[in-house]
Amino acid sequence: MSRISSRSTFGRLEAGPHTGLCRQSLTDSDREVRDWFLQQAESLGCQIKVDEMGNLFAILPGEDNSLPPIGMGSHLDSQPAGGRFDGILGVIAALQVLKTIKENGIKTLPPLAAIDWTNEEGSRFPKMCAGSGVWAGTEGLSECHDLAAIDASPDEAAPPTMGSELRRINYIGSTPCSYLQNPLSAHFELHIEQGSRLERAQKKIGVVGGIQGMRWYTVHCQGTEAHAGATPMDQRADALVVLAKFAVKVEELSLQEGAFGTVGVMRTKTNSTNTVPGGAFCTLDLRHQIEGVLDRIETELRAYLSQLTTSRSGITVLMGRTWSKRSVEFDQIARDCVQSAAVNIVGESMVMDMVSYAGHDSAETATVVPTAMIFVPSKDGVSHNPAEYTSEEHCDLGAQILLEAVLKYDHHLRRTTTASL
Amino acid sequence: MSRISSRSTFGRLEAGPHTGLCRQSLTDSDREVRDWFLQQAESLGCQIKVDEMGNLFAILPGEDNSLPPIGMGSHLDSQPAGGRFDGILGVIAALQVLKTIKENGIKTLPPLAAIDWTNEEGSRFPKMCAGSGVWAGTEGLSECHDLAAIDASPDEAAPPTMGSELRRINYIGSTPCSYLQNPLSAHFELHIEQGSRLERAQKKIGVVGGIQGMRWYTVHCQGTEAHAGATPMDQRADALVVLAKFAVKVEELSLQEGAFGTVGVMRTKTNSTNTVPGGAFCTLDLRHQIEGVLDRIETELRAYLSQLTTSRSGITVLMGRTWSKRSVEFDQIARDCVQSAAVNIVGESMVMDMVSYAGHDSAETATVVPTAMIFVPSKDGVSHNPAEYTSEEHCDLGAQILLEAVLKYDHHLRRTTTASL
Repeated sequence: MSRISSRSTFGRLEAGPHTGLCRQSLTDSDREVRDWFLQQAESLGCQIKVDEMGNLFAILPGEDNSLPPIGMGSHLDSQPAGGRFDGILGVIAALQVLKTIKENGIKTLPPLAAIDWTNEEGSRFPKMCAGSGVWAGTEGLSECHDLAAIDASPDEAAPPTMGSELRRINYIGSTPCSYLQNPLSAHFELHIEQGSRLERAQKKIGVVGGIQGMRWYTVHCQGTEAHAGATPMDQRADALVVLAKFAVKVEELSLQEGAFGTVGVMRTKTNSTNTVPGGAFCTLDLRHQIEGVLDRIETELRAYLSQLTTSRSGITVLMGRTWSKRSVEFDQIARDCVQSAAVNIVGESMVMDMVSYAGHDSAETATVVPTAMIFVPSKDGVSHNPAEYTSEEHCDLGAQILLEAVLKYDHHLRRTTTASL
Repeated sequence: MSRISSRSTFGRLEAGPHTGLCRQSLTDSDREVRDWFLQQAESLGCQIKVDEMGNLFAILPGEDNSLPPIGMGSHLDSQPAGGRFDGILGVIAALQVLKTIKENGIKTLPPLAAIDWTNEEGSRFPKMCAGSGVWAGTEGLSECHDLAAIDASPDEAAPPTMGSELRRINYIGSTPCSYLQNPLSAHFELHIEQGSRLERAQKKIGVVGGIQGMRWYTVHCQGTEAHAGATPMDQRADALVVLAKFAVKVEELSLQEGAFGTVGVMRTKTNSTNTVPGGAFCTLDLRHQIEGVLDRIETELRAYLSQLTTSRSGITVLMGRTWSKRSVEFDQIARDCVQSAAVNIVGESMVMDMVSYAGHDSAETATVVPTAMIFVPSKDGVSHNPAEYTSEEHCDLGAQILLEAVLKYDHHLRRTTTASL
């Protein structure tokens, strides 16, 4: 097995805590890192493709360059007050894999591609995973090009859009942004966990089985305003009590089902200390890896609200789903490649099966090509914060496993390509 | 027993529903009704006293005019969109009692006084029961005189105050506003219920044992903001869930104790759908006739919050009492006079013992002289609303009971005055 030649690179990431990064998508700072990425890729002899969304593909030739590359992608953009690991680790590791492959004279069957996906963060242009989303066909190219920057001044005649900013920094390419015209054989992504499950369990590597589904709801409750000092408790139509019980039930069911349930916003509409609230509002954020569990919780919550409104006269509740993202289950073969690479390198006791709580470019690629992810620990679970930190050891192990997983997938392709001959 | 000569008067009150009244304290419209009140009193041969707060005393002489009068008071001011019964009924009934006493040639031992207390509503000048409060010594005279009208324009150099408005309408008197220098033997008040307990129970008269105590609180909960999709349910410091449980507990304890507990305002501080709320706020309005019950509920709620914060790490809660008004228990002898008058006139089955949920001038007078109240039904419990309505029959019965209660109290004074000779 080839050792990844990464230590010096990841050592630069590890400059100490509280040294964050502000590199929002398609800014001058993003252009600079893109220039650096392409320079690295060219020095490895890679072929470069820039697509219509500014996604960068650094392609190292394989034995059969008619086959779609095995991709290793993540993103180089950050949150406005972000860290130096979220996304960036995956792209640097991909370059390191290419370098190691090249230095060791290894030839994979298909080419390999290190990929920088555009605007994963969605912070400057409010659409997460825009680049990988258009590539996978889940987002529209022109809608994304027309998306205005949220930091645009409201009186600007022509506020910057993704399209105008891609042109401005000269990163709008001619390669079609589509998995059909610019395909991959698979997509592997190394990423920091952005949580503390690995750290708490004292594990080194997470094998990510998928990305949990998310559903957002708003709940409006209408009762009747009444005098707080004269309306008997059993004759009230108190909208707040109903939503308070709802929030308690959300916690109870989420604990029971191992889901995430959050009432993030709650407010009464009347706002008088001595008036029984006639109206109340809350939001709900519900997440779980299994759509069936989300369905069950949603059904139970609706039944609970219905039971509350039946037992209290004069109350109506409207619970509406405002947004959802289906859960993603990663490809079994790609996961097996990651799993067996991880066990080989850190030993079974250091490996944890997990789902990703956050969204990633891999959620998009998984809809069209075999995809898998590798997680490494985040110190204290901190992310989207300058204090974000992953040790050099863990970055190094992650890159090593990325390399080996890709080689295992190459092996799988060789077997199946041969078998189909 | 003398029949009250009131039917024609209360018939004028009963002009039909939805014909409200706007007669805020010390406006021109208040001056007009004060003029009318004094004219009525003078036509009955009453002595008039106007005190420094504009409280009006119409005094019908008795046998021994060195004794303090038995007062019958309420208020002629209304809410900005008020009804024609709240307060007004009690003052008109007091005048009718004087008229009946005079017409029937009855002589009470002490004088009798019909009283109009200034600014009971507290809507124009934000201090409820200001006139009776200063008289009873629970409010300061100069503070009340300096109180600005809430409808004053903010750029007015000298906004109208209670003092300036009393001068303007020429109702600032020379009689000291004090129960010590202008004493009463007792205070009886006829008032509409402003609730629907009598109506629901199909009773005609409420014998009011006292006025419930009120306590207001604010509750601030501080937890930690966290990612809604990545923070396990059992590792959260969710401020909203704590206050939601609190609101549910308030309802539960209030039902259990027969109290009124209302969380009228609730809001999260972060207001992001996908963030675990790090801060939340709510108010609490708690009412019961017995201070010990209020103490017990408050203690249980504090213990519950403490238990919640102990079982969840990273949560702090501050529950502070922002205002309170102790419960009032009316004088036993004065109550007995009302009770026996009511039973005589409508029969025991039509009489209900009750506490007042709202504040009244009698809450002030009760702190310094024997006080009792009579309630008559309010249609649908509506009050502080143009739809406020009490039937002529009930107004008439209330006035009749006020008359008989006062005569019984006179009888009591005769007995005790004779006994002490």
